Amino acid sequence: MKVTRRAEFSASHICSSPQLSPDENRAIYGEGANPHGHGHNYVLEVTVEGEPDPVTGMVMDLKHLKQVIQEEVIDPMDHRFLNREVAPFDRVIPTAENLAMEIWRRLAPRLASDKTRLDCVRLFETEDLYVEYRGELA
Amino acid sequence: MKVTRRAEFSASHICSSPQLSPDENRAIYGEGANPHGHGHNYVLEVTVEGEPDPVTGMVMDLKHLKQVIQEEVIDPMDHRFLNREVAPFDRVIPTAENLAMEIWRRLAPRLASDKTRLDCVRLFETEDLYVEYRGELA
Amino acid sequence: MKVTRRAEFSASHICSSPQLSPDENRAIYGEGANPHGHGHNYVLEVTVEGEPDPVTGMVMDLKHLKQVIQEEVIDPMDHRFLNREVAPFDRVIPTAENLAMEIWRRLAPRLASDKTRLDCVRLFETEDLYVEYRGELA
Amino acid sequence: MKVTRRAEFSASHICSSPQLSPDENRAIYGEGANPHGHGHNYVLEVTVEGEPDPVTGMVMDLKHLKQVIQEEVIDPMDHRFLNREVAPFDRVIPTAENLAMEIWRRLAPRLASDKTRLDCVRLFETEDLYVEYRGELA
Amino acid sequence: MKVTRRAEFSASHICSSPQLSPDENRAIYGEGANPHGHGHNYVLEVTVEGEPDPVTGMVMDLKHLKQVIQEEVIDPMDHRFLNREVAPFDRVIPTAENLAMEIWRRLAPRLASDKTRLDCVRLFETEDLYVEYRGELA
Amino acid sequence: MKVTRRAEFSASHICSSPQLSPDENRAIYGEGANPHGHGHNYVLEVTVEGEPDPVTGMVMDLKHLKQVIQEEVIDPMDHRFLNREVAPFDRVIPTAENLAMEIWRRLAPRLASDKTRLDCVRLFETEDLYVEYRGELA
Repeated sequence: MKVTRRAEFSASHICSSPQLSPDENRAIYGEGANPHGHGHNYVLEVTVEGEPDPVTGMVMDLKHLKQVIQEEVIDPMDHRFLNREVAPFDRVIPTAENLAMEIWRRLAPRLASDKTRLDCVRLFETEDLYVEYRGELA
Repeated sequence: MKVTRRAEFSASHICSSPQLSPDENRAIYGEGANPHGHGHNYVLEVTVEGEPDPVTGMVMDLKHLKQVIQEEVIDPMDHRFLNREVAPFDRVIPTAENLAMEIWRRLAPRLASDKTRLDCVRLFETEDLYVEYRGELA
Repeated sequence: MKVTRRAEFSASHICSSPQLSPDENRAIYGEGANPHGHGHNYVLEVTVEGEPDPVTGMVMDLKHLKQVIQEEVIDPMDHRFLNREVAPFDRVIPTAENLAMEIWRRLAPRLASDKTRLDCVRLFETEDLYVEYRGELA
Repeated sequence: MKVTRRAEFSASHICSSPQLSPDENRAIYGEGANPHGHGHNYVLEVTVEGEPDPVTGMVMDLKHLKQVIQEEVIDPMDHRFLNREVAPFDRVIPTAENLAMEIWRRLAPRLASDKTRLDCVRLFETEDLYVEYRGELA
Repeated sequence: MKVTRRAEFSASHICSSPQLSPDENRAIYGEGANPHGHGHNYVLEVTVEGEPDPVTGMVMDLKHLKQVIQEEVIDPMDHRFLNREVAPFDRVIPTAENLAMEIWRRLAPRLASDKTRLDCVRLFETEDLYVEYRGELA
Repeated sequence: MKVTRRAEFSASHICSSPQLSPDENRAIYGEGANPHGHGHNYVLEVTVEGEPDPVTGMVMDLKHLKQVIQEEVIDPMDHRFLNREVAPFDRVIPTAENLAMEIWRRLAPRLASDKTRLDCVRLFETEDLYVEYRGELA
């Protein structure tokens, strides 16, 4: 049984690599490399897998799931400029892929128990583009 | 090849366990434990897996799939108070998890053939919360 | 300039009139007259009209708008059985139309100022059915 | 007859006024006043009013409408930091209200003809918040 | 008080005028002029205005509204090639504008009563393009 | 890591088999067998799997992914009558299943590299019906 909770946050980012020239960055990331940054309403779906508890009929306490997402993702990332305000994006390019991996790293230990494990992080950068990450548990 | 059909139904439910005290129920289910009940527009996605038939080019007859969902889920559950009107929710807490398992139990035998099997039941309780169940075939 | 804020709440209701016979109620409201009640995820859109303030560039403080919707609609109606727990629906049938009028009555005085007025209440009962009400200010 | 075309762009902005103190800005705009900026996927709906042409059966050439939106809004604003890269937002706070008014100013003269006029600019900052502006034609 | 009901239908059409040359048709309608036709999932929103009945609390019987839309629009247009199978589109170009006007003509007399009138027909040709028509009552 | 890009196209089709009688076709495909054809706004989701590049932080160049979808699917299929204008649908029934398989065949070789592979093609025929295909690489 899998349970998925959706959340949203608004953030801005710059996609460009210091290992690449401005022309290379522009060729790879297009307008995303604009050094002033640009923004998105990110939509995050967090999927937890587990067996429903025989007494409660629930895989996990949904208020707890919401609280963990709030503490690990929404509070530190909402209304932030990711490259400048959220580690490790001062040194890691905040592509949707890297952002999903970082969200996995933050959530997986908090959502692992003897009954549950983080199954998938899905991150929509726009309506038409999303990434899914199924990582290793820490 | 997987084919998914979406359907909606409106129902009300109470999430509370007779094995728990009122305070415990309130702590676990929050407002969902309100003894008067509350309601949702549930969105159901039913996924069937199989090989497309070489003549028809279809995994299964979509009118049949729609009819089975209608008979097994929509007719008995739409506009119902689940705890009071739909078995087994007189004795099983109608959490999204238990509801998805019950829908699986109802649909799996009807959608199993030599060519097809029920693959997944996905149930949205709200836009921001859904469960997925892949059960065993009866 | 109009500003619209969306909010959601889950509630259950019964649509039937004590002035009508059970058969008449069933004829008019269909399954909605089920005496056990059924539920919806209501989506509410509240539109306020006014001139943007020259200093803030905003028609009104959005945190205040959210707070008023929370206090007047979400807190009293979310996870409630409207007929039994929310006045005046003990004596007024909670159709979408009557619900929108009641929401107007609750919000209009709170959102009226020398600069702003409530313009419209839009209430979705399902994805495929909504009502809009533009009432008189109290 | 009204025709509405939807378009999207991603941008970042800061909502704070130089006429206000940091504390006042934080009180009014909340996290939106973060000096590093944050971003959104803005959704824009542009509505043109007119009579369908008797020969073409269309209010206006939809490719032209798309092109005007592209030139006046998407090209200059997509993937931009509004406060730093898009006039007049170096001196006007880019709230949704001010952004809608600026988009009106850019589009209205381009979409006015003997047969058509700009009717409304609707701008979604998030799924749950949008503004509508019906201005005067230049 | 306004009540809006949404419905969908799938149809194909060709947008080209016999009064225009093939080059002119291609210039005006673009790919829409393809003589083989192409198709859409049209989404229709029908808005009726009226006063809620004091006994029922409803502007009109929603089952009746659904039935009228079914009879006048869905049954004759769903899964049809509009230019070839649905009058008057054998001689009128089925642009979204003309389609909305025809739907108005079909629905307005059926939805007019001493208590109600058709207020608006909104037709989405795609997610990003829709028309709204408020006609005269016959 | 999986990356999914969404695209839309409008096309018309007829679902009927020359191996079946008109009555059999009508029984199997319902209104979809209408010999004049009907249409849809198809929504396509293309999922690519791979490891994010350590320098760019991306699984693949998104502009390239968009371009491949444009060349292999949108350009040849948008605004087309599939049975008459797009091979192999002159001889293969363009059910959603067969369409997804053909899209897989077109995309898989273009999206396969030492770092990436096509993972899934998901095709929505309507909001309420979609198919998913995970084929073999050519």
